[in-house]
Amino acid sequence: MTISPIDLSEYRVDVQRAKQGVRLSDWPTKAGDKEKRDETEQETAELQNQLSEWQEKLYAEGQQSLLLILQARDAGGKDSTVKHVLAGVNPQGIIVTSFKVPSDIEQKHDFLWRVHPHAPATGMMAVFNRSHYEEVLVTRVHGQVSGGQAQHHFAHIRAFEALLHDKGTRILKVYLHISPEEQKERLLERVQKPEKHWKFNIGDLDERAHWKDYTRYYQEMMEATSTDIAPWYVIPADQKWYRDRLISQLLVDTLAEMNPQFPAGDFDPSQVVIDDTDSD
Amino acid sequence: MTISPIDLSEYRVDVQRAKQGVRLSDWPTKAGDKEKRDETEQETAELQNQLSEWQEKLYAEGQQSLLLILQARDAGGKDSTVKHVLAGVNPQGIIVTSFKVPSDIEQKHDFLWRVHPHAPATGMMAVFNRSHYEEVLVTRVHGQVSGGQAQHHFAHIRAFEALLHDKGTRILKVYLHISPEEQKERLLERVQKPEKHWKFNIGDLDERAHWKDYTRYYQEMMEATSTDIAPWYVIPADQKWYRDRLISQLLVDTLAEMNPQFPAGDFDPSQVVIDDTDSD
Repeated sequence: MTISPIDLSEYRVDVQRAKQGVRLSDWPTKAGDKEKRDETEQETAELQNQLSEWQEKLYAEGQQSLLLILQARDAGGKDSTVKHVLAGVNPQGIIVTSFKVPSDIEQKHDFLWRVHPHAPATGMMAVFNRSHYEEVLVTRVHGQVSGGQAQHHFAHIRAFEALLHDKGTRILKVYLHISPEEQKERLLERVQKPEKHWKFNIGDLDERAHWKDYTRYYQEMMEATSTDIAPWYVIPADQKWYRDRLISQLLVDTLAEMNPQFPAGDFDPSQVVIDDTDSD
Repeated sequence: MTISPIDLSEYRVDVQRAKQGVRLSDWPTKAGDKEKRDETEQETAELQNQLSEWQEKLYAEGQQSLLLILQARDAGGKDSTVKHVLAGVNPQGIIVTSFKVPSDIEQKHDFLWRVHPHAPATGMMAVFNRSHYEEVLVTRVHGQVSGGQAQHHFAHIRAFEALLHDKGTRILKVYLHISPEEQKERLLERVQKPEKHWKFNIGDLDERAHWKDYTRYYQEMMEATSTDIAPWYVIPADQKWYRDRLISQLLVDTLAEMNPQFPAGDFDPSQVVIDDTDSD
């Protein structure tokens, strides 16, 4: 099928835009046309086929890697994005790391110490479900990291991401943009459906009460860390089916730009002889 | 659809059988009925749906884990099994580790040192594509590990696997059983198809020449390490579609036995109130 490509640059926080100041309210939380949901889902399926093919080449080539960083408010759809966009990719070529509250040992180190080991090896795709960015978000909301400290953190993050980039890692950073109404619905669903109880954390309600603080710190974070090599994307995420469509295309477009190729063999096929052998 | 379950015990090297001595030639490398290929592939697809559902419960429960160890001769189908059986599983819940020739640093440690960090956390599925078993296979064929040393290694492996088992890890060990004719065909395919050149390693031909040695050491390995808690399965693997059917069922049956459940919430749903909040 033919896919009508969507201009994803409108969701990108490019450097110019970051300099002018980021306002999350400039981006929609909903952008899909309900009438076209079926068609959109078919496009997503086709994009995911393309994603699998690119992933195989990325792995075979073994020279570059792709890192997708997912950040969102609670119930913003991080887990769901991983499941719906990336199930289907050969699990041998992708590693998803979920970053939780830092452990005692992790807190005894700089904030990138626990992150660095999970950077993707050449040939691999990696997903960070939450990331080093928590250190300039939840910590700021709760006053554990000051504005001055955050500036240092931002500088460390830019340097860290530049280091990965220099090793051939393409970095995509996605903020899943949901409305407070959508978050409420999703949290209610977790409360009401027994099979979703395990996802409900009563503490999420305290974080929800800090909605505006989070908005502020997300904005500052994007202003300070949207770079040419690692831009943020503000992806409308109230409609999961449209979110999946956009992120699938973002991955496919990026891999197409990276353009990994099956490497040539280091042997002369005409000279290879494979003998028969006896069984047992 | 209804699936006619296959009796997988005939492929299991149970302890009794291991004691009597293992002969790979007692097992078929081909067991699927060609006439039923379509039907079999539909069953595999349905089993993979069940696998995804069980995986979600395993992750949600967070109390147990599943480790699948894949061993095979070159071109035995390890990568292909991962791709065809496990793509579709949420990548957040599965980590595949491919063990290559040990690095300089790894060689300075005991042979389980590099393996242990990749044991699955509770809630997770892990796949070892090759494993600690290489240390009693390729090394023996090339005389780097003696029969006496191998006995020590076997004891260490049994103890290691018992350790994982005690933490709630179910261990499945699969030998992908192919014939020398099938290996030849697959190696030829790698030589002939440019997009498969990257998978061809000229050294594989030297290993092929040691076919009988490998057979001998695989057998000894199974005799020494097939235990009640971590049995080997000799899975006919000449027909990829039948191999995938068997391994899919093996995973589903095992998870059904483990029977993970969505945990109850630690809150009273009737007491939860979610306030509205202002945007921005």
